[in-house]
Formats: sequence, C-alpha cells, structure tokens
Amino acid sequence: MSELKQKIWNDIQQVREISPLVLNITNYVVMNNTANALLAAGASPIMANAPEEIEDMVALCAATVINIGTLNAATVESMKLALKKADQLGKPSVFDPVGAGATTYRNRTAEELLDIAFPTFIRGNAGEIMTLAGTSVASKGVDSTVGSAGSEKSAKSLAKAHQCVVSVSGETDIITDGTHIAYIDNGDQLMCRVTGLGCTASAILGAFAAVQSNRFMAAISAAAFMGVCGEIAARESLGPGSLQLNLYDVMHTLTERQFTETVRVRGK
Amino acid sequence: MSELKQKIWNDIQQVREISPLVLNITNYVVMNNTANALLAAGASPIMANAPEEIEDMVALCAATVINIGTLNAATVESMKLALKKADQLGKPSVFDPVGAGATTYRNRTAEELLDIAFPTFIRGNAGEIMTLAGTSVASKGVDSTVGSAGSEKSAKSLAKAHQCVVSVSGETDIITDGTHIAYIDNGDQLMCRVTGLGCTASAILGAFAAVQSNRFMAAISAAAFMGVCGEIAARESLGPGSLQLNLYDVMHTLTERQFTETVRVRGK
Amino acid sequence: MSELKQKIWNDIQQVREISPLVLNITNYVVMNNTANALLAAGASPIMANAPEEIEDMVALCAATVINIGTLNAATVESMKLALKKADQLGKPSVFDPVGAGATTYRNRTAEELLDIAFPTFIRGNAGEIMTLAGTSVASKGVDSTVGSAGSEKSAKSLAKAHQCVVSVSGETDIITDGTHIAYIDNGDQLMCRVTGLGCTASAILGAFAAVQSNRFMAAISAAAFMGVCGEIAARESLGPGSLQLNLYDVMHTLTERQFTETVRVRGK
Repeated sequence: MSELKQKIWNDIQQVREISPLVLNITNYVVMNNTANALLAAGASPIMANAPEEIEDMVALCAATVINIGTLNAATVESMKLALKKADQLGKPSVFDPVGAGATTYRNRTAEELLDIAFPTFIRGNAGEIMTLAGTSVASKGVDSTVGSAGSEKSAKSLAKAHQCVVSVSGETDIITDGTHIAYIDNGDQLMCRVTGLGCTASAILGAFAAVQSNRFMAAISAAAFMGVCGEIAARESLGPGSLQLNLYDVMHTLTERQFTETVRVRGK
Repeated sequence: MSELKQKIWNDIQQVREISPLVLNITNYVVMNNTANALLAAGASPIMANAPEEIEDMVALCAATVINIGTLNAATVESMKLALKKADQLGKPSVFDPVGAGATTYRNRTAEELLDIAFPTFIRGNAGEIMTLAGTSVASKGVDSTVGSAGSEKSAKSLAKAHQCVVSVSGETDIITDGTHIAYIDNGDQLMCRVTGLGCTASAILGAFAAVQSNRFMAAISAAAFMGVCGEIAARESLGPGSLQLNLYDVMHTLTERQFTETVRVRGK
Repeated sequence: MSELKQKIWNDIQQVREISPLVLNITNYVVMNNTANALLAAGASPIMANAPEEIEDMVALCAATVINIGTLNAATVESMKLALKKADQLGKPSVFDPVGAGATTYRNRTAEELLDIAFPTFIRGNAGEIMTLAGTSVASKGVDSTVGSAGSEKSAKSLAKAHQCVVSVSGETDIITDGTHIAYIDNGDQLMCRVTGLGCTASAILGAFAAVQSNRFMAAISAAAFMGVCGEIAARESLGPGSLQLNLYDVMHTLTERQFTETVRVRGK
C-alpha cells in the first residue's frame, strides 16, 4: 500500500512539474474556483466555452472537463463538439453530470453527450452516478440523497457500459473501471458546505488525467489529492469561508510527508 | 421584543434543520457567493437558469429567487417562466431589481416581470425600490445614491401596489407589507465594499421564505440574520477580502447568544 | 522619482475619493473578483453585458473595460457596441485581449474590435501583446510563454499603430505610449497562481483612467497600485487562497507610507 501512496505522490508531482493545460467547459457558479484549484495544484486552466473555438481549445489542451451544472443550449453545443474532438484526438475527457436526475432536460442532455462519445472518466456524487446507471433514486437538486456506499454496483455497471473509469465522491470516494475498485477515506463533512467542491474534484481529475496515462491510477490520485487537501484544510478552518481559502493554500503547499501521513486509500 | 428575537432565532434554526432547496436565477457576478451563503446558512442552493428546465426546478425547490444583475434575453425568459410557475404553485418568490433605474432595458424588464405575477417579496436598495415605486431618483449604476430612510414611503406604496413584502437594505433595513413596518439596525459600512451582498441578502430571504410561511416575519428574520452575521464578521475583518470569508464562517457558526446580543430590531 | 511616486499616490487617492463608475464587459471567471478589486480600490463596478443596454451603461460610466476571456457571440456584440460608444463619447476604454494567439476565433475577434475603434489602452501579458503586434509567438492558452522583457518592441509598435497606451504585465510591467516607456518592478511570483489577476489589472486600469486624463500616467499609476498591493499581500500569504483575500484587504487599506516604501518605478 505504501507503494500505491508513492505512485499517487508521483502523480501529484507530475501535475506540478508538467503544469498541463486543462480545458473546462463548466458552470458559471464554479468557474473561478475550479480555475483557482487547478492553478493551486500546479496545472494551467482554460475556461473557454464558445462553439466557435472549442475544438481548437481541445486540440491545444491536454485534457477536457465537461460539467453540466448550469447547462444551456450554447454550452451544450460546445460540450458535444469538445467531447467528439477529444475522442477523435485520443485525449482524456472527464464528464461531470451535475444534477442528473433533477430534470428531464438534464437527463436528456447527459444521454445525448454519452451518445456522442464515451468520456474517459465520469465523476459525480452517488445520486448522479446511480441516475446515469439507470438506477431509480430520489434527487435533491444537485446534492445526493444517498451515500456513496450504496452506489458501488451502479458505478461498476456504468463503467462497464461506457468503457470508462467512474469516480464517485462521498464520505468514501469510490473509483472503478468496472472490474477493479479503490476507496479513498479522506475529506471532511464541512466540504459539503462549500459550493462546487465536486466540480473542483472533476477539474482536478482532468489535471491528473493529463499526466497519468493509466486512467484507473489517474482517478485514484486525483481523488486522493482532493480528499487529503480538503481534510488538512478543514482542520484549520472555522467554517466554509476559511475552508475554501485554505484548500487552495494546502493544494499549493502540500508536502510528501503531509500527504503520506493523511491519505487513506485501499483497493480490492 | 425579546419574543421577536426568539422568533427570528427559531427561523434561523429552521433553515439549518430543514435545509430548503432554493432556486436562484441570478447574475454571473454573485452566483458563487450566493450559493456559498445559502450553504453556510444551512440551505441548499440550485443555480440553474436554462428555460428548458426552469419550471421543473421551480417545482423541485421550496423558493425561487430572481435577480436581474446581469440580465440578458435568455435569462429574462427563464425568469418569466419561473415567476409564473412559482405563482401557479403558490410557492414563495423573491425579486431583486438590481440596477433598476440605471437603463431603460432594466426598467422595462422589471415592469414585464411584475406584469407576469406579483412576487412574494421585492428586495433592493433604496434607489431600486424608489424606482419601482415610480419615485424619481438619481441612479448610480447598481449602488443607491439615497439612504434607506428616504425610501419608507415608496416601500409601503410598492408593497401595497403589488401585494407583497418589500425589504429595503441600507444603514437601517426597512421591511414592510404596506401596513406594518420593521427596522433592522445591524450591518457594517464595510459590507458596501464587497460585491453582491445585497444579492446575498435576497438569496438568504429565499431560504427564510421557504421555512416561515408568515412572509412579513420571514423578511424580518432574513434581514436580521444577514445584518447580524455581517456585523459580527466585519468586527474581525481587516478589509473586504476577509469580510467575505468571515461572513460565511459566521453564518455557519452563529450561536443563539451571539445573535441575541447583536441583533437590533424594532417595529411600529 | 519621488515626484512620480507622489503623482501615483495622488491618483490612488483620487480613485478613492471620486469612486468612478467602471463598466466591465468581462469573462465569467473573474466577474466577481474584478468587481471586488474595484470596490476594494474605492471605485464602483458595473458588470452588465447585454447588448440591449450596453450603450446606456457606457454613457453612465466613466470608463469601459473590455475583456475577451470567455468571449461568445452575444458578449462580442456588446463589446463592439461599447467600444464604438466610448469612442464617440470620448470616454476612456481598456481592451484586454485574453488568450490572443490561442485560437483563430480569438484572434479574429481581437482584430474586429480594433477595427471598430482604437481603445485608449491595451493591457495584456507579453504573448498577447506580441500576438496583437503581429509578432509570432508560441501560445500556452491564456498564460504567456514569453517574459515581458521580450515584448518591449512589440508593445511600442502596437501603441503607435493604434494610437493607444500599451501596458504589459509580467515580472516587470512595461507601459508605453509608443514613445515614452516606464517600468514597474513590483508584484510577486505567487500572483500567477491566482486566476485572473491580469483581468483585475485591466479593471483597475479602468478606474485610474477614469480619474487621470493623462493616459500614460494613468497606466503607470494603475500598474504600480496593482503591483504594490500584490507584493504586500503576497508577503503575508501562505498560498494563492490567502493571496486573493489579502489583495482585497491591502487595496482597501494601503497607506501612503506602505506605498512609497514598496513601489519600484523607473522610466526612460
């Protein structure tokens, strides 16, 4: 297991050294925060979303992240063009189906995107992953009403059906390629009181996907980095305001020792 | 008066316990901040704005907040659909006429929205409320050139004309249903140096409207919560950067004792 | 040189006293941050971007800032209307060609805007300025692959060609009207790890352009204010999260003594 920790730490260092360009077609709520998280982790964010240039941007970047949080007709068009282009170029893509299950429009858009091309990764909370896997689940807007533990079967079947790696965030993060499975037990309850940290996890996954070609490993490293930084940041935070700020600081300053002492990862 | 303080505190606790879903069709400047303020207060924000799904979102949520800060053709269409749907379902709605008085387009849109359906609440600064009430007032963009004190008559007539509760923010907040009136003397001058705290007050009002069916009481509780948290946060802030952060922390951690010692509310 | 420092400090005080209205048609990533930076500096931000009202807003404001970070068809239309109106009214305008060089759409849009009217100021990083000047340069998305030092010749030729003042941000900021040149040696490397501080510098330039009619002087004062505040803020920051917060606080509280002791400006 200490070998796995070493591998994850290597990926964290790779993001810092290579500073990959990560394209984010994301929602208006978190644009600033995901850009800042990518910068704090050492990557370089691009936040363009116009259909006129999105294919050029996919070609320029090392990974593409698609997030439907505040989807609209124009950005959905860009998402489709981007997903197709990334697939054609063999570049990694992350799909974050924010709020899947909440409305018909959201579900239909998620389906249409998955019909264009399989993304390399799908990352969401338990409710979103279960909705995509066709499991019936009560939705509470963009937050999940079910814990991540109950989504393991859905995550596996979704990964198999779309030949991708699925990452489910929650009290325990679950990562699966349909066959293998890994669990991350980091993070802090206070993270639910900062908007868009799930979206941040998706953006960070884009950065790790850009430097680690083993996609199962990339998803483990991204979730571990996010969980460890969130957990350390929460320790010294009075509330959600200081947590957001501390998260960027910790992402920027995280040392190998801090990481190794804090990370709790296991597989089966 | 200590009975009123107790009632307000009960509403604050209700928001934390019920964690109502609040839909925000709001401007791009404050999306992140209003979502974070709602989370810090204990509520659950939804920030969708596509016409294709907005009625489903209104039906899913306990309250709807409409804010024209960065209005455009697409979001105005969503605002109209949302206001009509909320009215049909008998769900509370908040209208924040940001920058009313600054341009013809802004004034015309505000009128069109009020023609669709009367919102449950109108919340703005003195200049915006006076503009909507038909009182001539010099506009300085989105900030008010007049103090809240001068807007009392306009607020009352606007509340009567649209059968709603009007909440005016300023050095003293004024809340009126056209007959009754209440004043909140909390807050801090530094709050004017953080963008969108008026928008945050509107979002917070959505959360209180979702848990308190007496709408005059809901508006008092929301303004008191906002003012008290802002005032406590400002005490320990070096400038507007720390104030924004501390505001979220205080919203999340506010105790009954802190609240009772700080709130200054009076009625007539 | 101490006379120049005094002149800059006077401009800083003028922004605080006059509190000019600054219109920003900017990208979705930084809307909140540039509004907050303008408020912290003492100015009043307007963030509207609908074509229906943009000319009214230009007329209402003392300066207009145009930033193509997340350009799309609708906002580009507004940018064109705004630039033309500002030119007609003889009001100062700032153009920030974010990501120029990254895509054909971005380059074409920059050209189209410069064909409408010459802005009073063009502010960007070295790569963007060199692209606009027609110098071939490798692009890395929105970040520059070249240092500011290599852009001096391009900046001068761009200023001459468009009869404007060009401000290049980098380790050393370069300001030129095509004939005169000034250098600011403030700032901190950590500023590159906070998203959109270049965009903030453009917004701040709008505020200084509104109070200082000598445009070469306005650009020097704006860059000096930004660099000094960033440098002081970075000293007490653990990482990019605290830097963003401290920057607003320092902008709000900066004293003449702090400014004079920190600023490093030289001309030739």
